[in-house]
Amino acid sequence: MNIYIIGIGLIGGSMGLDIKTVHPEATVYGIDTNPKHVEEALALGVIDHEGKMADLATADFVIVSVPVDVALTILPEVLDQIGPETIVFEVGSTKNPVCEVVSNHPKRRNFIATHPIAGTEFSGPSAAIKGLYQGKTNIICEVERTAFKLQEKALDLFKAIGMRIRYMDPKSHDKHIAYVSHLSHISAFMLGKTVINKEKHEQDIFDMAGSGFESTVRLAKSSPAMWTPIFKQNKAQVVETLEEYISNLNQFKELLVQEDYQAIFEEMESVNKIKEILNGMHPKK
Amino acid sequence: MNIYIIGIGLIGGSMGLDIKTVHPEATVYGIDTNPKHVEEALALGVIDHEGKMADLATADFVIVSVPVDVALTILPEVLDQIGPETIVFEVGSTKNPVCEVVSNHPKRRNFIATHPIAGTEFSGPSAAIKGLYQGKTNIICEVERTAFKLQEKALDLFKAIGMRIRYMDPKSHDKHIAYVSHLSHISAFMLGKTVINKEKHEQDIFDMAGSGFESTVRLAKSSPAMWTPIFKQNKAQVVETLEEYISNLNQFKELLVQEDYQAIFEEMESVNKIKEILNGMHPKK
Repeated sequence: MNIYIIGIGLIGGSMGLDIKTVHPEATVYGIDTNPKHVEEALALGVIDHEGKMADLATADFVIVSVPVDVALTILPEVLDQIGPETIVFEVGSTKNPVCEVVSNHPKRRNFIATHPIAGTEFSGPSAAIKGLYQGKTNIICEVERTAFKLQEKALDLFKAIGMRIRYMDPKSHDKHIAYVSHLSHISAFMLGKTVINKEKHEQDIFDMAGSGFESTVRLAKSSPAMWTPIFKQNKAQVVETLEEYISNLNQFKELLVQEDYQAIFEEMESVNKIKEILNGMHPKK
Repeated sequence: MNIYIIGIGLIGGSMGLDIKTVHPEATVYGIDTNPKHVEEALALGVIDHEGKMADLATADFVIVSVPVDVALTILPEVLDQIGPETIVFEVGSTKNPVCEVVSNHPKRRNFIATHPIAGTEFSGPSAAIKGLYQGKTNIICEVERTAFKLQEKALDLFKAIGMRIRYMDPKSHDKHIAYVSHLSHISAFMLGKTVINKEKHEQDIFDMAGSGFESTVRLAKSSPAMWTPIFKQNKAQVVETLEEYISNLNQFKELLVQEDYQAIFEEMESVNKIKEILNGMHPKK
């Protein structure tokens, strides 16, 4: 089994590691515009060999795990190169633009649009970890536009590495993910900014911040190169979620200014049901 | 050694567990207005006996770990009851109001104002965990107003359970903690609200939210009974931090609306230095 990973970072690299665990016979080839990433991935055993775009016809799977703007230019080129049995999937955090760009490609049926909901705030080949996808959700868009046999091949692979499958149309995906992922990133980045701006002496932050702050601001470590094109592609949805978030924050602030502590209590109490929602995310617990 | 815990929840209960670990001979008494908390704490071994306010004169340590509004009324009563060698400390997330309320108490020198920066989003006796304070910071305010011998006694205990000590005046404490703790809680609560309001079908949240959302929204599980009085007591500082946060969010939104993706990239890149700040919080790593 030949696996090609284009863009060897956290997502693609972890995918390679997991595939090698369930398919020890697989050979993993890596392609990356950054030669250091290739070197690093080889040294870490994340890939077996450096690959070439010209050899994609020999691939069983091609995983495109690059920033979402790069995906739009590279995907059509990848589809041009592949063989009739190759299945290509892309793993970015926006799905509508990528589905549109390949929509009329003659090899559209060799492509499956996916969003594995997994990751950490780190990036690059050294961020790749085994087991990242175990128990995680993979959202698949426009599944009916992928050849039946190739759907099956991809789904078998996703299930083998422990993923749950959910189907969604790309527009709904982009709308929903703005709330549960893109907004979280902006909230963390702006929280980090607010605190950094205020605290002239960073030692104060070191000593007073606890695990709560750390948890809330964690995503502010994320890669700007990865996130800028996500916000660009999902601009309308992200602006809408931001406006709602800002409006809720303003309303909370007004309750404070008016000293309506009963209403503040009730606001928090009603959001407390997030406990059950988060518990629902880990049905095995 | 007699330890009295008034308010047996996450903070007081964990303190009791850690003190018993380092002082196995200590007897821990618990006082709580909620009889179920007393029962639960006894069953879990968090306390050895139920205590009475009338017996506080026999206490070596009294830990007041109640919501910060309750602390204002209970602390003078506690000080009235204690013996000359008893040291009382309070552990809430605001320090100025509590320092003011005991300022002229005849037994002010038996009191030490502390804020152990430790906790989880859970509450009640069942949330108490051993080792919670290991490696954490304890901020002590107005240390010079505590009797020297009793300062020493308290500091020895805090160090024995693994805490680092930092000194701060109560107003600076309340100002800084608004940024690194209180604001995080509001950001999490309002993020939870925004998503809950939007997603009519909660199943969508279960399936699309990953560890990033979970981390950012975690503090929205926190107790409204504990947090409402904190926001009340620190209102002015919290409103100020909220205004700065909202202003930063609005500015980010404007950059999106104007499609200034270079500026968005730079915003995120400059906040990325939070990595080093967060790493600095764990100097042992």
